[in-house]
Amino acid sequence: MTFDPETTTFLIAGPVRIHPRVLRAMSMPSLNHRGDYFHGIVQEIRELLPVLFGAKGRQVILSGSGTAGLEATYSALLPKDGRTLVLKNGNFGDRTHEIARRYSTNVTTLEAPWGRALPLDDAKAELAKGDVRAVCVVHNETSVGLANDIASLAPSVKASGALFLVDGISAVAGIPVKIDAWGLDAVVAGSQKGLAAPAGLAIVHLSERAVAALHPGTFYLDLAAHLKSLEKNDTPWTPAVPLFLALREALVLLKEEGLENRLERTHRLAEATRAAVDALGLELFPDPRYASDTVTAIQNPAGMGDLELRKVLERQYNVLVQGGQGALTGKIFRIGHMGIADWPDLLITFAALERVLGKAGRVRTPGASLRAIVDRMP
Amino acid sequence: MTFDPETTTFLIAGPVRIHPRVLRAMSMPSLNHRGDYFHGIVQEIRELLPVLFGAKGRQVILSGSGTAGLEATYSALLPKDGRTLVLKNGNFGDRTHEIARRYSTNVTTLEAPWGRALPLDDAKAELAKGDVRAVCVVHNETSVGLANDIASLAPSVKASGALFLVDGISAVAGIPVKIDAWGLDAVVAGSQKGLAAPAGLAIVHLSERAVAALHPGTFYLDLAAHLKSLEKNDTPWTPAVPLFLALREALVLLKEEGLENRLERTHRLAEATRAAVDALGLELFPDPRYASDTVTAIQNPAGMGDLELRKVLERQYNVLVQGGQGALTGKIFRIGHMGIADWPDLLITFAALERVLGKAGRVRTPGASLRAIVDRMP
Repeated sequence: MTFDPETTTFLIAGPVRIHPRVLRAMSMPSLNHRGDYFHGIVQEIRELLPVLFGAKGRQVILSGSGTAGLEATYSALLPKDGRTLVLKNGNFGDRTHEIARRYSTNVTTLEAPWGRALPLDDAKAELAKGDVRAVCVVHNETSVGLANDIASLAPSVKASGALFLVDGISAVAGIPVKIDAWGLDAVVAGSQKGLAAPAGLAIVHLSERAVAALHPGTFYLDLAAHLKSLEKNDTPWTPAVPLFLALREALVLLKEEGLENRLERTHRLAEATRAAVDALGLELFPDPRYASDTVTAIQNPAGMGDLELRKVLERQYNVLVQGGQGALTGKIFRIGHMGIADWPDLLITFAALERVLGKAGRVRTPGASLRAIVDRMP
Repeated sequence: MTFDPETTTFLIAGPVRIHPRVLRAMSMPSLNHRGDYFHGIVQEIRELLPVLFGAKGRQVILSGSGTAGLEATYSALLPKDGRTLVLKNGNFGDRTHEIARRYSTNVTTLEAPWGRALPLDDAKAELAKGDVRAVCVVHNETSVGLANDIASLAPSVKASGALFLVDGISAVAGIPVKIDAWGLDAVVAGSQKGLAAPAGLAIVHLSERAVAALHPGTFYLDLAAHLKSLEKNDTPWTPAVPLFLALREALVLLKEEGLENRLERTHRLAEATRAAVDALGLELFPDPRYASDTVTAIQNPAGMGDLELRKVLERQYNVLVQGGQGALTGKIFRIGHMGIADWPDLLITFAALERVLGKAGRVRTPGASLRAIVDRMP
């Protein structure tokens, strides 16, 4: 089957499927981004953004990917002299580490193997020393399908006085991110994950403390310049207009569903996915206690690589799931179930998996994975 | 009349009107930007890009605005130690100056008043000193409707051995940019100008010499990382997928028309605009010898500010032209006629101008501006 983007079951770990209303929003003709009409759109977006973060605060929209949001945040908030603590246990943790080292000369890195829980006790010990000025962590590590327990770390960060800077790219609108309760100072969201808008925008939530601490970052991504413009419903540089139009519509959709309902649906889909994985006799890749609700990372069955499993799903059943990154290529596959993913997506995905594994004589109890899904439907 | 983006005659200085084919291209469902299908799209774009620049070479696509393209270029190519020469005579020259100062500690700036020709003799004298390592200049200064004569400067830059870094954001596919003949080392194009794609992408053309001189720039906009990925039809970070789809379609449209034909049409529209301005008894803002072919900047008639002129065009006749920036606010208005702008756009714009000025008793020869346009149609 030739790949057809119009009919594919699209369950990669992001970008996620985009609602047709959001796609259509981008087909509006050109707008003057310095005119009242566009300013009105930006104002609507600003009024809707607290729905995305579940918190009020200062929020910045950057015309760039999540990586742009991270660089904007770290370049403007990492201490030039004081110590930065980076925690990592996956590919995106590596990215945070790489950016942090560009903007902070004193970085302490604590890591766990990919897919294992962060060494939070070690982190707390570092924080207790009192000289850490900023903590950087990826909340939801998409590369290994793991959600880091930043709630447990939050009191120690708060007590230390360090800025708490969180890569929430695949967490926001996917898993609970309790910005106020946990005292998060910066949360970077991406447009193409839980929000289910197209890729290309980063949205950064900042605490008042973070706003006060901003220093000049890069020119294009300077958070202070963006904050200042946004107060006038403007942007310092030319915005990616179609992506702003899509962002507005995706936020309206999220508001219609409600953030809590989206998180609940995502969680329920994740529980069903994990139960179906178990019913098929497959194993999760990450520590199951920390399995992410937005993306499930599954070990390939022995002897079956990408060609035997993931590529068959794609070519034969028009189901697109994602492979592993880096050293995990061919070792795991990942099913994204965030954004507007829904039950039909899971049913066809696991039907196809049952069929492929069944043909290979690897299904113990035929139909069990589908029954596991049905049992977890609302 | 309430602003209606679907029916407005849209002639600002960019973003410009987008062809419906390009708008529709963005409505394709989500794609896996790490999959073969998207890699194929990137490959098509790469094969089409020489059509945009009228030159082969190494080209980079950045998910960010033209400003992102400038920061990418200056951060990676300005000498950390050696001297940088910046020439400026408008708002975008100021921006280049501001970014250049972030990445070069030794900047010499030569400027002319907004709208006047650059002090090229002074620039040549500086270049003759032999210690200038990079020259930064805005080719087409949209803010004042002026095209800088970089062709005249080119031999001196070449002789000096300095890198020639050009803000071509509103020049590329709008006025002739002879990359090879003039020896330009970097040309930054924006998606939303002569190319008539949506705002949000910067495309940077690099000479082999520039590629060899790249040093690490910012993280998100690192040109070397983008070049390396693009060789595999990939991007280092998540690309703004809908904008890539639009870029491809806009490049196909440009190829269908042909770059030379687009430049010729843009030039002819500009000549007609200037003739019509003259016929109305209005004055250009910039030195007429350097009037830009992509945007015509016109002095407001005495006693008529934005409210009496530009806003009336917008509210009464649904014609959107642009005002002045900074100190020129209310003093000038600007008509963009690049991209896919065409004769009907000019006819309704000058018909509306005739009507507004006629009501104010300011039209010497009724109908002369429209006749001036008709006379210059192909």
